Amino acid sequence: MDVRHLSLPELREVIRRGQYTGPTPGLAPGYAQANVVILPQKYAFDFLLFCFRNPKPCPLLDVTDVGSPVPRMVAPEADLRTDVPRYRIWENGVLKAEVTDIRDYWRDDLVGFLLGCSFTFEAALLEAGIPVRHIEEGCNVPMFVTNRPCTPAGVFHGPMVVSMRPIPQEQVVRAVQVTSRFPAVHGAPVHIGDPEALGIRDLAKPDFGDPVTIRPGEVPVFWACGVTPQAVAMSAKPEFMITHAPGHMFITDPKDEELAVL
Amino acid sequence: MDVRHLSLPELREVIRRGQYTGPTPGLAPGYAQANVVILPQKYAFDFLLFCFRNPKPCPLLDVTDVGSPVPRMVAPEADLRTDVPRYRIWENGVLKAEVTDIRDYWRDDLVGFLLGCSFTFEAALLEAGIPVRHIEEGCNVPMFVTNRPCTPAGVFHGPMVVSMRPIPQEQVVRAVQVTSRFPAVHGAPVHIGDPEALGIRDLAKPDFGDPVTIRPGEVPVFWACGVTPQAVAMSAKPEFMITHAPGHMFITDPKDEELAVL
Repeated sequence: MDVRHLSLPELREVIRRGQYTGPTPGLAPGYAQANVVILPQKYAFDFLLFCFRNPKPCPLLDVTDVGSPVPRMVAPEADLRTDVPRYRIWENGVLKAEVTDIRDYWRDDLVGFLLGCSFTFEAALLEAGIPVRHIEEGCNVPMFVTNRPCTPAGVFHGPMVVSMRPIPQEQVVRAVQVTSRFPAVHGAPVHIGDPEALGIRDLAKPDFGDPVTIRPGEVPVFWACGVTPQAVAMSAKPEFMITHAPGHMFITDPKDEELAVL
Repeated sequence: MDVRHLSLPELREVIRRGQYTGPTPGLAPGYAQANVVILPQKYAFDFLLFCFRNPKPCPLLDVTDVGSPVPRMVAPEADLRTDVPRYRIWENGVLKAEVTDIRDYWRDDLVGFLLGCSFTFEAALLEAGIPVRHIEEGCNVPMFVTNRPCTPAGVFHGPMVVSMRPIPQEQVVRAVQVTSRFPAVHGAPVHIGDPEALGIRDLAKPDFGDPVTIRPGEVPVFWACGVTPQAVAMSAKPEFMITHAPGHMFITDPKDEELAVL
């Protein structure tokens, strides 16, 4: 099914009916997409605290009321049980199922967390004329586990994961300025230049995603990555957790530009 | 005891020993001061969620681990049981005691919340040459309960409280710019001009604080106020709560300017 021409309400309806179960990059252009983590209430305070303490890797866009699947701040008409194209069901840190609807898995004690996604600031970089290499090369962004621990909270702890984009030297300052406007989607870079400072040995061998070309005169620039909260949540091995499947995001009502602070 | 000349570590030590129990405005200049709310764990998720959903009135600077009195993000050497000059003890929403040390009241299930305070952005306004009338007039800032409900979370709900500062017409844009840099301390104004739009009938009769002079050519500008979270917490009548006494704040390690986003 070709859904690229659909408006956000149309697209959400098609996803809700299970008629589209594919990845979301490029769909409903201009609307902010979000990472999804759903946890039982017993983990909710610790996870919310973890996100508060680590706002760069874990920029919260919305948190549902206990038992409610409705993200009232960013999509009051939506339902997190049906409006994500593809979900993963985890038990004790082990992947148990991949499904396109979680109505059968929903429980009264679940809390949904929506976290900002780098698609938003990549759109802003492109608008500013700054190249985004993995989009040019049609692959996934390269991601690396760093030597920087997140600030722990309760049962949740782990290293920060970063994504890397090579930026032409003369555009690095502008890239910092452009992404600083979007703290709700990882914001400014966490590091510019020398990968060793983050404990990264080889930019050609990312821990997740794909390697990209770094051209002469380009500087590797590192942003905190939304893989961090999922990795952290998984490593805590909660007895039950639901996430989106990679690349199959929840699409929110706010436009990317509405998330800018200035 | 005159403590105005003391450095932050010296001042904190004097407060810790109970040798200074007075108000904190003007002390340890340049360091960010914080509102304090301490609640049992059973309320912690709801209150953290309330603050996340209402970042303008409730800008969180730190949240302690359950049972820990140490605000690790903003003052890892401090102790919230001793380092606030004066506390209020609340039971079921009723003020039970005002004390200068809460070691006898501390419990293993308490969680401390530190929230940003307008002193920081007032310093920035003054630096930018923008007058702050209640400081000029040596009184409290006028505060008003508005007709705007906060977004509720669990047991916590209530109207937003705002503070008002009259700003010369030609400096209103600059006042927005200057305070936008400080989202951790209420950030940009929530409203400019017509008080009726917020349901405020008479600027000469604030709900809290003191009235101030509004001169010809000045516009009333309204910022979300840190009284909001305390009022909201109180109205939920938790069986136990500790707050700072008004004006007797916790002083954090970060300088005001470190809280700026740009």
